[in-house]
Amino acid sequence: MTSSVTINKSHIVVAQNASGRNMNVPVYRLTGQQPGPTVYIQSSIHGSEVQGNVVIYQLMQYLKQLQIAGEIILVPNCNPVGTNIKAGEYTLGRFDPVNGTNWNRGYYYDPDRLDEFYHTVQDTDCTATIKAKFRQFWRVAITEKLESAWGLGLAQQLNLKLQLLALDADIVLDLHNGPVSTRHIYIPQYAAKSAGLFNIPHVIFIPNHFAGALDEATFCPWWTLQEKLSAARGTNIDLGVEAMTLEMGSQEVIAFEEGKQDAQSILAYLGQRGVINQCPFEPAVMQRVGVHLSQYKTLFTQWGGMVEYMAKPGQRVAKGQPLARVLNIDELDNEQATFTIYAPCDMIPILHFPSASVLSGTQLYKVFTEYFDITGT
Amino acid sequence: MTSSVTINKSHIVVAQNASGRNMNVPVYRLTGQQPGPTVYIQSSIHGSEVQGNVVIYQLMQYLKQLQIAGEIILVPNCNPVGTNIKAGEYTLGRFDPVNGTNWNRGYYYDPDRLDEFYHTVQDTDCTATIKAKFRQFWRVAITEKLESAWGLGLAQQLNLKLQLLALDADIVLDLHNGPVSTRHIYIPQYAAKSAGLFNIPHVIFIPNHFAGALDEATFCPWWTLQEKLSAARGTNIDLGVEAMTLEMGSQEVIAFEEGKQDAQSILAYLGQRGVINQCPFEPAVMQRVGVHLSQYKTLFTQWGGMVEYMAKPGQRVAKGQPLARVLNIDELDNEQATFTIYAPCDMIPILHFPSASVLSGTQLYKVFTEYFDITGT
Amino acid sequence: MTSSVTINKSHIVVAQNASGRNMNVPVYRLTGQQPGPTVYIQSSIHGSEVQGNVVIYQLMQYLKQLQIAGEIILVPNCNPVGTNIKAGEYTLGRFDPVNGTNWNRGYYYDPDRLDEFYHTVQDTDCTATIKAKFRQFWRVAITEKLESAWGLGLAQQLNLKLQLLALDADIVLDLHNGPVSTRHIYIPQYAAKSAGLFNIPHVIFIPNHFAGALDEATFCPWWTLQEKLSAARGTNIDLGVEAMTLEMGSQEVIAFEEGKQDAQSILAYLGQRGVINQCPFEPAVMQRVGVHLSQYKTLFTQWGGMVEYMAKPGQRVAKGQPLARVLNIDELDNEQATFTIYAPCDMIPILHFPSASVLSGTQLYKVFTEYFDITGT
Amino acid sequence: MTSSVTINKSHIVVAQNASGRNMNVPVYRLTGQQPGPTVYIQSSIHGSEVQGNVVIYQLMQYLKQLQIAGEIILVPNCNPVGTNIKAGEYTLGRFDPVNGTNWNRGYYYDPDRLDEFYHTVQDTDCTATIKAKFRQFWRVAITEKLESAWGLGLAQQLNLKLQLLALDADIVLDLHNGPVSTRHIYIPQYAAKSAGLFNIPHVIFIPNHFAGALDEATFCPWWTLQEKLSAARGTNIDLGVEAMTLEMGSQEVIAFEEGKQDAQSILAYLGQRGVINQCPFEPAVMQRVGVHLSQYKTLFTQWGGMVEYMAKPGQRVAKGQPLARVLNIDELDNEQATFTIYAPCDMIPILHFPSASVLSGTQLYKVFTEYFDITGT
Repeated sequence: MTSSVTINKSHIVVAQNASGRNMNVPVYRLTGQQPGPTVYIQSSIHGSEVQGNVVIYQLMQYLKQLQIAGEIILVPNCNPVGTNIKAGEYTLGRFDPVNGTNWNRGYYYDPDRLDEFYHTVQDTDCTATIKAKFRQFWRVAITEKLESAWGLGLAQQLNLKLQLLALDADIVLDLHNGPVSTRHIYIPQYAAKSAGLFNIPHVIFIPNHFAGALDEATFCPWWTLQEKLSAARGTNIDLGVEAMTLEMGSQEVIAFEEGKQDAQSILAYLGQRGVINQCPFEPAVMQRVGVHLSQYKTLFTQWGGMVEYMAKPGQRVAKGQPLARVLNIDELDNEQATFTIYAPCDMIPILHFPSASVLSGTQLYKVFTEYFDITGT
Repeated sequence: MTSSVTINKSHIVVAQNASGRNMNVPVYRLTGQQPGPTVYIQSSIHGSEVQGNVVIYQLMQYLKQLQIAGEIILVPNCNPVGTNIKAGEYTLGRFDPVNGTNWNRGYYYDPDRLDEFYHTVQDTDCTATIKAKFRQFWRVAITEKLESAWGLGLAQQLNLKLQLLALDADIVLDLHNGPVSTRHIYIPQYAAKSAGLFNIPHVIFIPNHFAGALDEATFCPWWTLQEKLSAARGTNIDLGVEAMTLEMGSQEVIAFEEGKQDAQSILAYLGQRGVINQCPFEPAVMQRVGVHLSQYKTLFTQWGGMVEYMAKPGQRVAKGQPLARVLNIDELDNEQATFTIYAPCDMIPILHFPSASVLSGTQLYKVFTEYFDITGT
Repeated sequence: MTSSVTINKSHIVVAQNASGRNMNVPVYRLTGQQPGPTVYIQSSIHGSEVQGNVVIYQLMQYLKQLQIAGEIILVPNCNPVGTNIKAGEYTLGRFDPVNGTNWNRGYYYDPDRLDEFYHTVQDTDCTATIKAKFRQFWRVAITEKLESAWGLGLAQQLNLKLQLLALDADIVLDLHNGPVSTRHIYIPQYAAKSAGLFNIPHVIFIPNHFAGALDEATFCPWWTLQEKLSAARGTNIDLGVEAMTLEMGSQEVIAFEEGKQDAQSILAYLGQRGVINQCPFEPAVMQRVGVHLSQYKTLFTQWGGMVEYMAKPGQRVAKGQPLARVLNIDELDNEQATFTIYAPCDMIPILHFPSASVLSGTQLYKVFTEYFDITGT
Repeated sequence: MTSSVTINKSHIVVAQNASGRNMNVPVYRLTGQQPGPTVYIQSSIHGSEVQGNVVIYQLMQYLKQLQIAGEIILVPNCNPVGTNIKAGEYTLGRFDPVNGTNWNRGYYYDPDRLDEFYHTVQDTDCTATIKAKFRQFWRVAITEKLESAWGLGLAQQLNLKLQLLALDADIVLDLHNGPVSTRHIYIPQYAAKSAGLFNIPHVIFIPNHFAGALDEATFCPWWTLQEKLSAARGTNIDLGVEAMTLEMGSQEVIAFEEGKQDAQSILAYLGQRGVINQCPFEPAVMQRVGVHLSQYKTLFTQWGGMVEYMAKPGQRVAKGQPLARVLNIDELDNEQATFTIYAPCDMIPILHFPSASVLSGTQLYKVFTEYFDITGT
């Protein structure tokens, strides 16, 4: 079977540096011969979270050989500023080094404007028309914001330019990494059924709450709109748009072979969603565990010191078992030379801080608590 | 006239560093022999904004000689972490270098909890009782937050420990600096009359909106409570608490003589508020200009390059006059070698970015627009 | 008089960033119709020292109108990496953020290789031939280094690529800035007579010692060679090559009008050196002060604290006069609240640290001691 | 067998921070009841290289139970500045963030002064007298430097204060880590026999050349002196002092169990050197590989991009085998999407860069070439 995928490559300018040079982002558009959903996948909005770039590379290798229904937009390394700020040997990639702004908090959504839009379609029957109008509505809103006379901060300019690329998508996947992390995925509650379609063992179900990230900026408006329409019409209306954040292991590392596995996982999902015809990959039969976002807890330190991370990401820890052991260099001659941090409840550590040296108030671990098995769902 | 001020010095621990050592903050309590308001003044929550430390030093020199009614709590250099993070020759002081959290966004206020409190005092007549109960209510809430089992981030731990120190105060002054800046002050709208009591020419009036800063965390609850009480009782109830952020010029600089002027300005205000008996300083007769927060605009760059800041902070600029001139090092041989940024409206630049080198999306200037004279008020 | 200057613009690639993109540097070559010396001028090898870019801009404006004899190579903003590393609002421009390498210490010179070269020309009479061979010798050596199988560090790659551009020059000017600084210039001792040709009041005379900077990498070999030739032939042989580092005021700032003055100063020098015919600018009659490098002292702090810089760059300070006043935030209630640093000898402060916040071991001031008047020379 | 070790703990001040607070270092002195050599062990001069602190902790646990002959001075976490400079989640620990100075290049040795000293003992027979005088000579020299009127940079102040602590030692061990690294050790050529006394598989033999590090500052003078004495007296004189840098795995990580192994390795060496009576640990029978420093090569990148490190530290790689695979995000649609870096010769990679994101000119790998088996030696 020969592939019939058309690949179009372009670059969009998202920033200018202090030398006055354009900083751009590659955009690959893969189009099949049949109609189908639009998919948008980006990686490395946080500059040190680079594994998604390899996942996109591996996706590309597979997709060249497959039958796509619809269009897949791939935007690797989507933050050319964050990728290139070094501070020591590592990449200072989570926030703008000038002002501390998280690179993943400046996407746009305004619930008030959604209400405004809703009135324009409450009597429209055709879902396709509603979807097209909805996209156009946000396109205008985002474009206006980008063109505002007083301007916008760098992170927000970058975010909005990417959001315009993602606006037509029915499926938006944002590829991230944790610090030292096992694989996990954020899925909006209304799309919970998709949890079983990826080969990712840890799933966080998130509510309809907007805090600035791309997945939220994508699903919050669609989720809200379909709830309003469903309520008004007394029937369950599914607008067919979903967005997830996939955390593909640890930052500062790329691994081609793991990227192949991750690509297969995404293809399995896309196959189920009708984007790939005769997809050679299916969702794995595997144990999956879910948690509600409110039960995805961060354990902060109350002390500063040097830490051995005893509990490994993905490994279940019972209440009272050791999580970490701390060295106190001023007490090496007595009993207080080390102390141990114990799990305050049953948990699955998902990620931990990537440095042994921590100040008080450091995010030591992020953990699943009150988690539940979703294997059968 | 001999002073009768008692000075008590202590230190509180606000963090531990990666060596496991305590990081503490000095707290000076100056008590007069007469009763009176409680005043809380801190400086340098943003580590590179150091001039407030000199202002507190100069205040101390004066206060030793004066008659205080009540108590004045002085907390200089209140962020020992932010003060000591160098990145190159400058101080990386506005945000936590680990995660980008602004050091002035983690104070506590919860409007829902205010409602909860209000019900407990809606039938209390005595204002002093209400105030004491209100403070105790927040003290419990903040303490609980600080002791939460999962912990808190470093900036928030620091903020809440300082907020506990400020909780008994009737007057809270938070001393900051801008990047390259003229003197200005943030005053809550309900305390607008205090604008004339400081010798500060530029005043920003802010609404009852909480975004995490110390001044807001202080005045939002008091403002809201007195509005509720006033509405319920049909009379104007003033609980007598106010909080301001004073911006004492530019960051990265200390100047003792200017600090003396700033101290005199604060003393003039404290004298008017009954904290200093026979205060030798009175508010200056000077031109003052006000602006509503919504009209205090940030001009972001749309381009990257090297900039000469032509408009100086404090200097009025008419619409169409030049603000900045930008050098384009790739076009030195042609007409595009430089270009000029013009004022989009009449304005007073208050501060500008402290470096000539800017990326797109940089906060070039913050400016007063739609400003008004408040000299006579 | 019409100019007959030909301007050629190109870009050379000096690095690749983590996105795999080329980072390049603009190179402007201005050629006159008459033969004459070759001049190389670069700016901003230290990324936060940006004023030289404006100086080159202003030079370009003048040179378009003038008669050049020879060739002038202008390389503004020659470090695209250092220019674009932000850490907070400032530019982390003095060293590679990955490993701390000073961007101005990786140029090449090897005295042993000079000896090797010398033997090949000790019997050559023609100076022009010697010069041409010497340049070719170093060109081969630098090219070999750049192509070495194991590679080179980023700063050194950048330096050597720039050094190749400068290799044909008879005059090399490297434009820098100090932290907070008055104008000063580094001149090799053998070219001391040039001190009077620039409009720069403070002159540091440096010996024939190589420490990795561009000026040294240029003049050390020529100086050494002409000394060897002179000694061998018993006559004073001048090979006519000189190199200076010009410090054009303070970092992080550009100022177009000052840049015009600086450009006129350089043109005055170039006019005297025969590069500009009928140069409209002549060296100013002004007071100039010189110092030997060994007497250009750095005053380090023995303490940490917050500092007011009382002595301004360029202002003479007598032994025992105050230089700086330090605030001690833990002693505001007693006599140790501040202390003063006094000049250990007569001096002219040339530059000081750009932040009020200093740790122990900080370069507080760099100062001329044992300086001498060179006005008449 | 009861231990008879006396433990004395003190702290020495090595710096003051910008808050004016002292920054100190713990010093543990363990003294046995019998005379013997003096040992000095420090860790974490590079702030992110923290495993040595655990090694010292584990040493302490063992030493409490053992019979020490002489004195062991343990200085964990010897750089309180470098340990506490965060830039993002990692520790910016290799160099002073203000000026880029490597924290391990400011120790003192001056060969000219050694010549001066030599004349004072050339007629002294008693080795103990020579050693005592030599130490006193350097103590005076270092103290004078520390007290110089113009002061010293922070890194050098820190280094010299530590060097004074190490001055009486016969054995100096400086505990470091590589970025991502296998265990290795630097041993001066004259002490090559000690290579077999540690349980460390990779050994770098270094020449008598001073570049500012603690091990060099220790062994260069002793090595030079004993060579001079040996030459003058025509006999082999061994002054019995040696110094090594031990690289205990990767930075940013502590691991208690590995630290126990490392402590046993150091104890085995100390046992052989007569510092521990009846030492329970002996040097392991294991394969050891040596290399001369000149053959310990750094492979720099010629390109920027994202890298998978295919060759693991400690794993032998033959010429032409793959070392690393690079992703090029702008070419994902064609054959240039990835390329592979091959070993230019047979080698053992010892460490690699700790981030997947590299600019051109990055130290990709440090490798043994021309290495040789030293198992039997």
